Formats: sequence, structure tokens, C-alpha cells
Amino acid sequence: MIKEGKVVLDLELPQVISSRMEVFYNPHMRENRDISLLLLLTIPFEGLRVCDPMGASGVRLLRMLLETNKVERAIYNDLNQRAVEFFRRLLESNNIGKEKVEIYQEDACLLMRKLRSLHYVDVDPFGSPVPYLESSVIPLSRYGILAVTATDTSVLSGTYPKTCIRRYGSMPLLSAEFYHEVGIRILIKKVVEEGAKMDYALRPIFSYSYRHYFRVFFQKDLGPKRTDALLQKLGYLLYCDRCLFRGSVVLEALVHVCPHCGNRLLVAGPLWLGDLWDRELVENMWQMRGIVNISESTNKLLKRIREESKLQTVGFYTISSMSEAFKIGQPPPLERFLQVFEGVRTHFTGEGFRTSLSHEELIRRSHELLQRA
Amino acid sequence: MIKEGKVVLDLELPQVISSRMEVFYNPHMRENRDISLLLLLTIPFEGLRVCDPMGASGVRLLRMLLETNKVERAIYNDLNQRAVEFFRRLLESNNIGKEKVEIYQEDACLLMRKLRSLHYVDVDPFGSPVPYLESSVIPLSRYGILAVTATDTSVLSGTYPKTCIRRYGSMPLLSAEFYHEVGIRILIKKVVEEGAKMDYALRPIFSYSYRHYFRVFFQKDLGPKRTDALLQKLGYLLYCDRCLFRGSVVLEALVHVCPHCGNRLLVAGPLWLGDLWDRELVENMWQMRGIVNISESTNKLLKRIREESKLQTVGFYTISSMSEAFKIGQPPPLERFLQVFEGVRTHFTGEGFRTSLSHEELIRRSHELLQRA
Repeated sequence: MIKEGKVVLDLELPQVISSRMEVFYNPHMRENRDISLLLLLTIPFEGLRVCDPMGASGVRLLRMLLETNKVERAIYNDLNQRAVEFFRRLLESNNIGKEKVEIYQEDACLLMRKLRSLHYVDVDPFGSPVPYLESSVIPLSRYGILAVTATDTSVLSGTYPKTCIRRYGSMPLLSAEFYHEVGIRILIKKVVEEGAKMDYALRPIFSYSYRHYFRVFFQKDLGPKRTDALLQKLGYLLYCDRCLFRGSVVLEALVHVCPHCGNRLLVAGPLWLGDLWDRELVENMWQMRGIVNISESTNKLLKRIREESKLQTVGFYTISSMSEAFKIGQPPPLERFLQVFEGVRTHFTGEGFRTSLSHEELIRRSHELLQRA
Repeated sequence: MIKEGKVVLDLELPQVISSRMEVFYNPHMRENRDISLLLLLTIPFEGLRVCDPMGASGVRLLRMLLETNKVERAIYNDLNQRAVEFFRRLLESNNIGKEKVEIYQEDACLLMRKLRSLHYVDVDPFGSPVPYLESSVIPLSRYGILAVTATDTSVLSGTYPKTCIRRYGSMPLLSAEFYHEVGIRILIKKVVEEGAKMDYALRPIFSYSYRHYFRVFFQKDLGPKRTDALLQKLGYLLYCDRCLFRGSVVLEALVHVCPHCGNRLLVAGPLWLGDLWDRELVENMWQMRGIVNISESTNKLLKRIREESKLQTVGFYTISSMSEAFKIGQPPPLERFLQVFEGVRTHFTGEGFRTSLSHEELIRRSHELLQRA
């Protein structure tokens, strides 16, 4: 028998706590549950609807029911049949009325996407919370709390930087003495981003690192303005591993100067710098035209793209942008530009062309064009 | 009656094409469907399972069935009852066998998350595809094709840069003559990211801008290595709006020099630079300790965080990092550091402290500490 708070569990602990336990109960997560109880108690209204989509033993929900007196509805879910049965027995032995609990046994993401008006959702999976974040933000009502546990702390802290970039889209920093804090800040960025794409402002309100996991609580608010305000606090950390200097910058502060004219450069991105077309595919599609009945416009579009895909630069030039920048009063027709700059047309605009010339060479030839025009 | 390819539609077109039509059919998307047919024809295997989760009139799927001879199973979905009924009649009048088609009427994301082994998924919603991306990547099999249409081109092209940052996490560039291309590259980045977080490599293979929409096709591959290779092609665009210079950089190339010691700085991020704790909340949680039965460790942790939250810097220092950097042979105890640097402890590590001193002042006082030690 195990006692945690007011809950008594009819369980024997194995020597090693692992996800292979018949019903998962981790005594080392007691502090995790304690903290969530305290946080739930601070919510300034009653009749809460709370959800644990990876419920396992169900201790978290049961403690919320027994120890806070604020929960109107506890929504439990676990894919594991034994866990669900264990939780049912736990409810009975603790005399929890059925009207207070909903029990599901399905995919956590699917369930969360079907629920609404929750005051509290707890994402506490084995491993990374990333696959659950988008789904978990949806059922929360305004001012609702999202609790996120991440046990992939070695990824977030920089032991596997490539995995961190893949999963969280950010570069970690194992060299800093506060690498765990960097990890938590990357986790927060990811949650903020997942909310922001749907105009939800998820503000971090309580974070900590403990034993093998990170934990952050977010409060959800709505609307573009509140979301924009949060996004202004995303940026980069600069760190000197010699003298320990640390500073932070936002993207806009990364000032660059034009190597050609010395003007301040504009920055866009992050964005895709690779090819826009697989050339072999374009050729294959071109060959398929006879098989399906395509419109004349489709044919034109494909023809243009077929030409364009032979010179896949990042960006192109247009007659008007060049005329303005290089003061070409009466620009010649596009054909002349294609010739002078060894260009190909682009489907993006009828007056544009791509060239593989260097910018210096382009400017040199522009002057020639200007003199001859 | 409308004819598109081999499909005849029993529809009258209204004067204005809008989502208010009883059954949505947009004749201006003919080219969109033409191109997807051509692309489907290039797939080098037969017996395809294709899905249109926002099926509307169903013309796309019907053309794939009638004009390619490669589709084994066409999965149609639309929330609109009238659209579903229209599509059923369309199938009958075209003598399509029921074994070739599955019809659903539910939330597109929920459906996609339940499907598997698809060779082709077409995401073509009203507005931005962002809410559907994560879900659409899941049901695709290896080498499967994801087609994405974005009609929020003004957002992606930079007319509403804040919305672009919220929704896509990237800064657009309306000042460039190729602002549409920048928009498509931002769309691609978003799709690549949504795949990467689940170790899926979504490589863009065909992209175009046409009328009011952007369209990109991706081929899905699996695994960290292939995904990492894609991510290396994400970066920033630099642009000079005076001389038209353009260049691209990856994050690592954004070199910064330590303002204190001149060393090359390390860069981490993007990450959250704001507060980790809402101080009022921490105080409230502290007050709630008496109400629930929390462990001694929880109490200690909360006490430490309560202190730490009073000085919310980005990053902290540790005894060992400072001893090494500033060559303090026999460092004094933490209490002395707290005193000299006006610091507070951090819960992240027992030997760490936060300080609001400038780095210069910190180094000055370190020398004093060193001399006295």
C-alpha cells in the first residue's frame, strides 16, 4: 500500500520505476503533483473542469478531487485498459461520485481535440510533450491552465543539439552553466509558438527543473494583440564561454550592413533556402500533359515553371525594381534583360527574371544597359 | 452544367465565388486540380490511397478517379452535409463503384489523425493551412505526397507581418520585389518544421504562386538524418532595399563577438527571454501550502523558487563556472558569493546564483574576491 496526500493506492512498487509497470505510478513525481495541486488552489474560481489525458494510475486527478474541493469534473484518459480499470477501482474505494468523473480510453490527442471549456489540462507523457502540444491548447478555455512536463531534458539541455533543433526548432547551449534554464526557455518558446499559430497567448506563469524533468505552467489568453506581446519576448541568447558574458537579442537587433552599398539590410525568415522544384519531377509532369485534360492556363504555368526550375536562385529581380534602384529611365523589354543578365523568366511575375550572376556583376551590366538605353 | 476534365457538374455558378455557396466549387482552382493530377500521374506506383479532407464538391477526387486510373481508394471528407450529398450523387452519375470511395463528415484534423497509409493528402482549406499541418503529416506513408494550398498570401507576403510571425513564426519581406517567393519559402519552412518535430522529412518538390494562392507539394520521408538535412536549408534572407543586394545566412553564421573579452560568442535559441515566474502566483502558491499535504521536498523546492523569482535574470552564474573563468583557486562558500554579488540562489543548482549586476561589475568584484580569497 502506498499513501500520497489523501490517496491510498493498492500497489506494490517494483524495484525499477518504468513505463513497463502494469499501471504506471511514479513516486518520484509526487512533487510534480504537489505543485499542480497548489497551483490549482490558486485559481480564483470554483467548479473546475480538469483533464489528465495520460492519466496512468489517476493519482493526480484523485488528489485534485479529494484535496482541493474545487473540481466539478475530472476527465481521465489512458490507452491502457489496466490503468483504466485501476482508476475505476480507486474511485470506488475513495467514494468518488460518478457524476464527478469522465473516463476515456483513447488516443490523447484525439480526445483533447474533442473536448472544450477545460480549466486545466496536464500534459505529462513519457518523453517529449511536443506531439501533444498543439492538441492540448485547443480544449482550454480562456484563462485556463496548461501544465507541461518534459522528460527529454538531455535534448533540451544540449546533449543532442540536432534532436533539439528538429523537435523544438531551437539551438540549445550545453556550454553554459545554466544549460537547464536554456532548456526550459526553449520548451517555453515551443509552447508559445504552438499557441501563437492559432492566436492563443500562452503565458508561462510557473517553471521549474526537478530531478529528471522540466515543468512549466501556462495560462491561456486569446487574441492577436496578447499573442504578439508574448512573441516579443522570444529571441536569442548570446554567451561567451571564456568570460561568461551573457546577453540576449531579438531578431530585429541582428543588424547587418549591405556589403555592396553599406545600407542597413532587411532580414526575413527563418525561411526555406533550398530548391523550390525537383527538376526531374517537373520534367515528368511536363510529359504527363497529354494524359489528362488540363487547361491552357495550366499548360502556360507549367511551361514557365519548367524554364524557371533550371535556375533556382533565392529571389529574383524585376524590371521595375532594377529601373528604380539603378535609375534606368526607359527600361528595355524583358527579353533584353534576359539576354544581358543571362536570365530565365519566373512564374511569380511577368516582369521578373532569375540570374546566377553575382550582385556586383549584375550592377556592372546594369550600368552598361543604362548607357546603351 | 459545368465541365472540368472528364467531370460534369450539375451546378450553377453564382456571380461571386465564396465559401457561402451551398456546395463549394471554385472554377478558378481548376489549375490547382490540373497540377495535382499531373503530379499524381508521376507517382511511380499504382493502387494509390488519396485523401481530400476538405472535399467540398469533390471534383478533385472524382477527377483523380476518372482521369488517372491509379487510385485504389479515394477518401472524401467534408463537414457540410450538402457537400457530402452532392458528392454522393456525383459518384453515382459517374458510375464510380462504392468500393473505391470512403466518405466522412467530420472535423478534418480528427479524421486525418485516425487515417494511415495514405499516398496523397490534399490540404486546401479556406484561409491558412496552419491549423491542419500537424494533423495532415501523420497519415501519410513513406514517400507519400502532401499538397498544401495557402490563400493567406497577403499574410505570407508581408502585408500583415505580425500575423505572419504569429502564424508561421517568420518575418516576411514586402519590400522585396520577390515578396511572393519569400512567402512561399516561409510556408515551406512551416511545413518542414511541423514534420521535423515528429522526425518526418517533408521535402518540397513543387511550388507555385497563382492568382490568389500559394501551392506547395511535399514528399514525406522518415528519420532524424533526412530531417536534419532538410533543416540545414532553413535560414534567413538578407536584403538591401537600396541596391537590391540579397544574400542568405544560417543562424550559425550570425557571428557575434563578446563585448567584454572579444571571444566569439555562442548563440542559442530562439528561446523565451521573459520571466519564468509570475511573482504573485508564486506568493499565492506559497500561502496554499497548509491546505494540501505536500512533501518536504516540495516545500524546499517552492521556498527556493520563491526566493529566485524575486530576481528574474536570463541565466545565472555558478561557483564552478566563475572559479574556472576567473581562476579562483579555492572558492569561498556560496554565501560569500551571494553577499559579494548581491545574488539570490537558484533552484536549478545548489551552487548557482542570480545577480542583477552588469557583467563588468561582476568581473570587477570577482577580482576583489580573488584577491581576498
